[in-house]
Amino acid sequence: MEEIQIHISETLKDKPDEQHLGFGQHFTDHMFLLDYTSGQGWHDPRIVPYAPLVLDPATLVLHYGQAVFEGLKAYRTEGDKILLFRPEKNMERLNRSNERLGIPNIDGDFIIHAIQTLIGVDQDWIPSGEGTSLYIRPFIIATEACLGVRASHTYKLIVILSPVGAYYSEGIQPVKINVESSYARAVRGGLGTAKAAGNYAASIKAQIEAKEEGYSQVLWLDAIEKKYIEEVGSMNIFFKIDGKVITPELNGSILSGVTRDSIIHLLKSWDVSVEERQISMEEIYQASCDNTLEEAFGTGTAAVISPVGELFWMKNKMIINEGQIGAISQRLYDTITGIQNGILPDTFDWTLEV
Amino acid sequence: MEEIQIHISETLKDKPDEQHLGFGQHFTDHMFLLDYTSGQGWHDPRIVPYAPLVLDPATLVLHYGQAVFEGLKAYRTEGDKILLFRPEKNMERLNRSNERLGIPNIDGDFIIHAIQTLIGVDQDWIPSGEGTSLYIRPFIIATEACLGVRASHTYKLIVILSPVGAYYSEGIQPVKINVESSYARAVRGGLGTAKAAGNYAASIKAQIEAKEEGYSQVLWLDAIEKKYIEEVGSMNIFFKIDGKVITPELNGSILSGVTRDSIIHLLKSWDVSVEERQISMEEIYQASCDNTLEEAFGTGTAAVISPVGELFWMKNKMIINEGQIGAISQRLYDTITGIQNGILPDTFDWTLEV
Repeated sequence: MEEIQIHISETLKDKPDEQHLGFGQHFTDHMFLLDYTSGQGWHDPRIVPYAPLVLDPATLVLHYGQAVFEGLKAYRTEGDKILLFRPEKNMERLNRSNERLGIPNIDGDFIIHAIQTLIGVDQDWIPSGEGTSLYIRPFIIATEACLGVRASHTYKLIVILSPVGAYYSEGIQPVKINVESSYARAVRGGLGTAKAAGNYAASIKAQIEAKEEGYSQVLWLDAIEKKYIEEVGSMNIFFKIDGKVITPELNGSILSGVTRDSIIHLLKSWDVSVEERQISMEEIYQASCDNTLEEAFGTGTAAVISPVGELFWMKNKMIINEGQIGAISQRLYDTITGIQNGILPDTFDWTLEV
Repeated sequence: MEEIQIHISETLKDKPDEQHLGFGQHFTDHMFLLDYTSGQGWHDPRIVPYAPLVLDPATLVLHYGQAVFEGLKAYRTEGDKILLFRPEKNMERLNRSNERLGIPNIDGDFIIHAIQTLIGVDQDWIPSGEGTSLYIRPFIIATEACLGVRASHTYKLIVILSPVGAYYSEGIQPVKINVESSYARAVRGGLGTAKAAGNYAASIKAQIEAKEEGYSQVLWLDAIEKKYIEEVGSMNIFFKIDGKVITPELNGSILSGVTRDSIIHLLKSWDVSVEERQISMEEIYQASCDNTLEEAFGTGTAAVISPVGELFWMKNKMIINEGQIGAISQRLYDTITGIQNGILPDTFDWTLEV
């Protein structure tokens, strides 16, 4: 790959108030772009001022959704270092998503280098307040302008950066989740394991309906029998039942989360029993009735750990741990964010300095 | 709704050769735009010179695929009239797609009026050759720039026009189709009944693999048991077995095609037995073995009727009607295109003059 060309913006934007960042609302002064052309491969890596994309109305991504993305974060440590968290896992997953969507593979190491370079340019944007970070959004879109339903011959890989606060406006407070029994997110053989734009489009309607009922997220069940637990909104899900931690296995329709994987590693290192297996909603309901459902939490890059205080399923309201964050959830949150922020030792070699 | 503002382009493009139009390769001089803003509704209908869209890199449609579209055609008759074919059906379906994707409803009558006005402006682009037409692509994209996974607060409805030849480069020649047994397109509760961008993204990989094996399209089976027939690539599918025509029923995961509906009406008016029901691939294979599988054809706006000459399933190659177009397929094609082109009487009141 050629060297990254860097064009610094002549005007810099005002930075947002670190107390009110929200999620994905503000973007930095620059972005990274990389083009793909059939026969030529990926080319023209460049960092340019953050600016609108100019897309023909017939651009394939707008019609047939050939688009994938990733999400990771950069953290500013107390010693003013900048750390990435397991970026190679995101690049591996991006290529698995590419494979499923018929998008050409990228060189993960090069994209990590590009992200590091971009962050270097915009490092003043990395917030330092509690719970804040710089969210990194690499995404690839099909850019050919034509209406045939087929893989594009041209693509753009774009990386944008957004200083973010906590994902949930409630902060680390437990969330109330509706178990979705009508809509389906993904099915084996579909796009569920890919971080593809279309998966999220499928979730919006259920999310709207859950919000109307006072729930902030949706828990997805398998699309076939509507019995087995898959994932929560944009997170993986874990339960602690009678001292054991369980999470749905990677069954071909759920996303392989980087935070999910990190949590499994941590729990094992703490000698906490953790099982990846099929989990029915009936099992969770029974555990709730038996008072053995001790904790539940979602996991993802945006939220890290999001404790679940209430599940609503088939007209049954299950209050978990009296609606409070549980001990394992808190320990996992403290440990992962501690590693991410450079406060705790990085015993797993998960961080990469920018 | 306000009146449509019309801004005529100062420079007009050269028109393409009518002999080599292809599908969705060329676009006319103008496009229709309509904006949506939360609290304000749809506003600012306008016809403007065809030009690129300027989209923030964080625009929701590029990340989470909140996008729907329609496809219909305008035909130039021998008497130089311009006809649309059942546009109200496309508008009804567009609103069903909107509903599923959490996109605000549109006023179908107004959009038909907008399409008529746009075609009036660009009428010199409607080709008149055999098999040619003006393809009309209305689509709606989520335009808010933020990275939260939720329904957008702003949208754009865009209509672009493309003079097209036959969809399949082979013309009306029967196509070879691979029955897909691994990948899934859609599942009940998912987006299958919506004309959503994400559905097509899910199909691209299977399409690539089918092409590599020499098949031009994919026949999708149900995602749950991989036994029952759903649809073909971007078309619905019909079979003629032992004199009866059958097509999969609208089961919650297949698209409700306008051409499909028109064909069912036509067959009934001809007193040909037509059944909408569950069809297993096993049944088709048996009929092929018994020599009662007389015809198979895909149906859709782009292709109208696309006869299937060969199906490949579980290593079995089924040749249908000796690889030739069948009598019913030909009669349906002639009748529908005859009505669309104003050659045959429009006994069902399907056409609308521009």
